[in-house]
Amino acid sequence: MTTVDWGLGPGAEFDLIREMLAAATTAGREEGDGPLDAADPPGAGVQLGPGDDAALVGDGRMAVSTDLSVEGVHFRSEWITPREVGYRAVTAALSDMAAMAARPIGGLLSLAIDRERAPRWAPEIAAGAGAALGRHRGVLLGGDLSRTPDEAPIVIDVTVVGEADRPLRRSGSRPGDRLWVTGTLGGAAAAVEIWTSGQGDPAAPLRERFSHPEARVAEARWLAERDVARALIDLSDGLAADARHLAAAGGVRILLDPKLLQVDPNAEAALGAERALELALAGGEDYELAFTAAPGAVEEVVAEFRERFALALTRVGEVTSGAGLDIVGLGSAEWRAHGWNHFGDGR
Amino acid sequence: MTTVDWGLGPGAEFDLIREMLAAATTAGREEGDGPLDAADPPGAGVQLGPGDDAALVGDGRMAVSTDLSVEGVHFRSEWITPREVGYRAVTAALSDMAAMAARPIGGLLSLAIDRERAPRWAPEIAAGAGAALGRHRGVLLGGDLSRTPDEAPIVIDVTVVGEADRPLRRSGSRPGDRLWVTGTLGGAAAAVEIWTSGQGDPAAPLRERFSHPEARVAEARWLAERDVARALIDLSDGLAADARHLAAAGGVRILLDPKLLQVDPNAEAALGAERALELALAGGEDYELAFTAAPGAVEEVVAEFRERFALALTRVGEVTSGAGLDIVGLGSAEWRAHGWNHFGDGR
Repeated sequence: MTTVDWGLGPGAEFDLIREMLAAATTAGREEGDGPLDAADPPGAGVQLGPGDDAALVGDGRMAVSTDLSVEGVHFRSEWITPREVGYRAVTAALSDMAAMAARPIGGLLSLAIDRERAPRWAPEIAAGAGAALGRHRGVLLGGDLSRTPDEAPIVIDVTVVGEADRPLRRSGSRPGDRLWVTGTLGGAAAAVEIWTSGQGDPAAPLRERFSHPEARVAEARWLAERDVARALIDLSDGLAADARHLAAAGGVRILLDPKLLQVDPNAEAALGAERALELALAGGEDYELAFTAAPGAVEEVVAEFRERFALALTRVGEVTSGAGLDIVGLGSAEWRAHGWNHFGDGR
Repeated sequence: MTTVDWGLGPGAEFDLIREMLAAATTAGREEGDGPLDAADPPGAGVQLGPGDDAALVGDGRMAVSTDLSVEGVHFRSEWITPREVGYRAVTAALSDMAAMAARPIGGLLSLAIDRERAPRWAPEIAAGAGAALGRHRGVLLGGDLSRTPDEAPIVIDVTVVGEADRPLRRSGSRPGDRLWVTGTLGGAAAAVEIWTSGQGDPAAPLRERFSHPEARVAEARWLAERDVARALIDLSDGLAADARHLAAAGGVRILLDPKLLQVDPNAEAALGAERALELALAGGEDYELAFTAAPGAVEEVVAEFRERFALALTRVGEVTSGAGLDIVGLGSAEWRAHGWNHFGDGR
């Protein structure tokens, strides 16, 4: 899932999600006298519940995850085409499959849209959804379609299911591990910044990072098959926030070195090195992978990875005992002063 | 899924869904040179794609379905509480599990909501979702949360996954079969009609049919275990529309006798017998079951069913060779004159 800034203060969106989960669990237990036989205990068939990139259910380690895209929050119709809207929405969900090292089977597309735009937009959104799924050999499994009241934003919710033979979770990091990141960072956020600041359209490569992201499904499975990664997450909320998630899930501290980051060169060209680095750290929706691995484990395969996928693979930090995220050369006061404190408290 | 009237003319919403599916399939095939190995053919792991109440994936016959609830379309916040909103939204999705005779494992809750209402509404919606899941021994598996632009309606999308050991599909009806329906019909639509016509709140039992519907999961599984039903659907679009779906999926004609319907007595008391009958035929969201069965098959178990579930089980029509739906005593001209033509053309 992708968490958007609510403007509710530090960590408020994560607090709200935790409150929702607690409320659902309590209410579910209170319904214990439901109409089914006690032969089916609550939670039967659940291998992994909320809190990771996907849930795992059934004997076959079926991974399932869902991702919302809201017009005016995640995208604007002036920025990208309806087909790109569909492609992005599905890629966000497929990226959660990558983050579990799962093979996508298919997706469900739910679309709430006004009557006026529906006839032209809905098939285009579906085409983009089908393209994103087909790129990873998945298919559209179904969905739902609803009109909205007039003037309401388009809302797309995509659920993907996949098979995770060797699921990789957010937990599992150990002190001494290294932190690695695929690809370059900051491009999608740079495109958004250029659009929202009224500078017109971003250059084509930056626009492409936002409009046509790639879920790193094959890359994640390749790493899982070689038993390289200990803990894995996809970069939807931004490296700083997602590294905090890894640290929290693993009960460890992560020390990130910004000098090691592969910042998107087009973001640097457009916005300058300093702002591009900030976006590489704090901007979301690059849909690259971040993972931890034992010292030396990645070094053995890094050349093969880069050649096979034509994609950077970069060591950007290390795992230590402790808790939370620290950034080399940046105290927590500076961190907060940079306005990045809305990404949560890392609990 | 629940199909809402788009005001696009007869069958237009189903035409749009078909167009979306075709566009997604075409676009998916064009992406055949995706980054994965050819060892994973497109559609691997898909047992049943779009067109039924749920898709079936994986070896374990995992059923997966999704259902949208949009404020101002499916519900209004003046009508029901946030907790009821969550309960209803999940029940709509669980009803698709019932329609496959699947055992629910859990659900994913995606919620798009404005900042102002989020702190109070989101935990309540989640509590209702958890209660609906818990009633059928399912759990909340995850989800997504997004803010919306101000003034935008709340959008909830619920995906449920379940195990279908003996999945029952919409197809499979044969000429000579009988059509059966559980429970009473028209109550939920009567509640909506009373609210929207400005008559204040409906009486408690009618309000309950809308605010706190029950997915007939246990009932469907009981019927499937006894091998009673040949084809099964849940009543989300209304009996007339859903019987058309059964007829289309089975390649048969269904002849429905309105005199046999168990119309909700509270709907009759509030709106009169004629209007209540119309709503029993054309109103949606009762979430009862409709199924076809060989002559005599249900008769053997009907007394046990009624006693066990304290629920009506009524023969309401028959299956013949041919196509589409006919209603005894009602020609197609009258049918259209009653304003029910927006429920689709049954193709």
